[in-house]
Amino acid sequence: MRIYLDCIPCFIRQALDAARHATDDEHVHEQVVRGVLDLSNNLDMHQSPPVIGQQIHQLIRKLVRVEDPYHGLKQRFNDIALKLYSKMRHIIIESEDPLETAVRVAIAGNIIDLGAKSQLPKTELEETIDQCLSGELSAKQLKDFQNAVNEAKNILYLSDNAGEIVFDRLLIEQLPIDKITVAVKGYPVINDATMEDAIHAGLPQMVDVIDNGSDAPGTILPSCSRAFRDYFNKADLIIAKGQGNYETLNDVNQNIFFILKVKCPVIAKDIGCNVGEMILQKTKAFKGEKENARI
Amino acid sequence: MRIYLDCIPCFIRQALDAARHATDDEHVHEQVVRGVLDLSNNLDMHQSPPVIGQQIHQLIRKLVRVEDPYHGLKQRFNDIALKLYSKMRHIIIESEDPLETAVRVAIAGNIIDLGAKSQLPKTELEETIDQCLSGELSAKQLKDFQNAVNEAKNILYLSDNAGEIVFDRLLIEQLPIDKITVAVKGYPVINDATMEDAIHAGLPQMVDVIDNGSDAPGTILPSCSRAFRDYFNKADLIIAKGQGNYETLNDVNQNIFFILKVKCPVIAKDIGCNVGEMILQKTKAFKGEKENARI
Repeated sequence: MRIYLDCIPCFIRQALDAARHATDDEHVHEQVVRGVLDLSNNLDMHQSPPVIGQQIHQLIRKLVRVEDPYHGLKQRFNDIALKLYSKMRHIIIESEDPLETAVRVAIAGNIIDLGAKSQLPKTELEETIDQCLSGELSAKQLKDFQNAVNEAKNILYLSDNAGEIVFDRLLIEQLPIDKITVAVKGYPVINDATMEDAIHAGLPQMVDVIDNGSDAPGTILPSCSRAFRDYFNKADLIIAKGQGNYETLNDVNQNIFFILKVKCPVIAKDIGCNVGEMILQKTKAFKGEKENARI
Repeated sequence: MRIYLDCIPCFIRQALDAARHATDDEHVHEQVVRGVLDLSNNLDMHQSPPVIGQQIHQLIRKLVRVEDPYHGLKQRFNDIALKLYSKMRHIIIESEDPLETAVRVAIAGNIIDLGAKSQLPKTELEETIDQCLSGELSAKQLKDFQNAVNEAKNILYLSDNAGEIVFDRLLIEQLPIDKITVAVKGYPVINDATMEDAIHAGLPQMVDVIDNGSDAPGTILPSCSRAFRDYFNKADLIIAKGQGNYETLNDVNQNIFFILKVKCPVIAKDIGCNVGEMILQKTKAFKGEKENARI
């Protein structure tokens, strides 16, 4: 997905939020805003928004001289999510369709996105879980997702944020775990999950976990390591969580299912839905087993 | 009030809204955003936000080649307000304290501010009137306002937006009209009221109406005509409506009462209140009759 003009005020707001999160030094806040104005003024609008997000957060880390300004907040969201883990697992296992319920729970976890919003009160997380358990979700896409999971031999699961990764674990537990590799970000960016968060969520005991070698808030393939790209190309199903992965991968010619909660009006317009909706959607280029067999 | 960093994303959002309002040409939208990025990059943060607002809307009018992109919308809001006029007048006259009720109605009218918000559904206007009739308003400031009105010899009433000016008329009807001059903007900017709107609201039949000679969305004195500045300096009470007038005049050493509904978190922080609050507040430099007598 390309950058829209509406993204520009949002880049500046996000950068200011992040700068304030990283330091109280107002001089640095101003340097960050001026830096983002420069970036915005020399913008190639054909890039995806996370290309700019990556540059903004590199700039903030350089100016603030802190490797991971969101470290404490990520730990906090991991802990909050882990406290909800048993209750949510129980809801999933007891439900009529555990895979569907696990998809709903994984979408709910996508509300933990400090790129899209400055703050997230704990009550909003619990409200979102309730809404996602009963909200509208395409039965057709769910069936296609179930089929794609059954047919796939190698599944690459692209995680999104810390805290949310515990919700991803709940979905992964309902998938054939021997087929699955989970990818986290290579370096800290906003509150995106890194290897530390995967370990915190207990994922490496269940599945292979790799990092993508990149510090972009999404999956910008040229920015990822060769090792990651090999996994990406080899996978016959990619499950991509969150807005950043949608923005960077929706035009990629691969079998990808996007799972996200829409928090941004520009993405909503691109998808053709409303802000707040739950999305389980495959790429246009998606080929099922039958299509593959025909080729 | 100076420009805060938070104003910058808001400038860009406002400019994009205004550009889209003025034309469907996406090339112009991009030119406007790039122009505002340039302005923002060379910003003197000690200026008041409407200084930039003035430049943004000059740029939009130049690029779009339309003198008054909001003309139709201003007419619409005048008509909506005029339809509510009799009902509101009745509420004011029948109330226990007509001046207080008229102040509340005038504050409600300040929701018609397309600088602060992109759109205003009609239901929101009626809801705002209901809220403002019962919401909290400082009794001390009301008493001080009543006293200041009684003591003043020359009152200059700085109007804000089209549509809202009908609500201002309802307040002006409760004031000593022989002391009052109403000022409108000299040229169109956003949906600010000009002479045409004052005529639409029926004001010139009641009071003297002047224009301020400026196209700033507030009262930037050096940008106003000498004739207006003479009125401004001669007035012993100025009633200033709306956020733009607060932003440009809150540090001016004059007897000013600000009347507004707070719609922006930066102004809320500057005043020390919450977004949504009704404000009737005098300048720090305000001198009552007793203080004047002592000098």
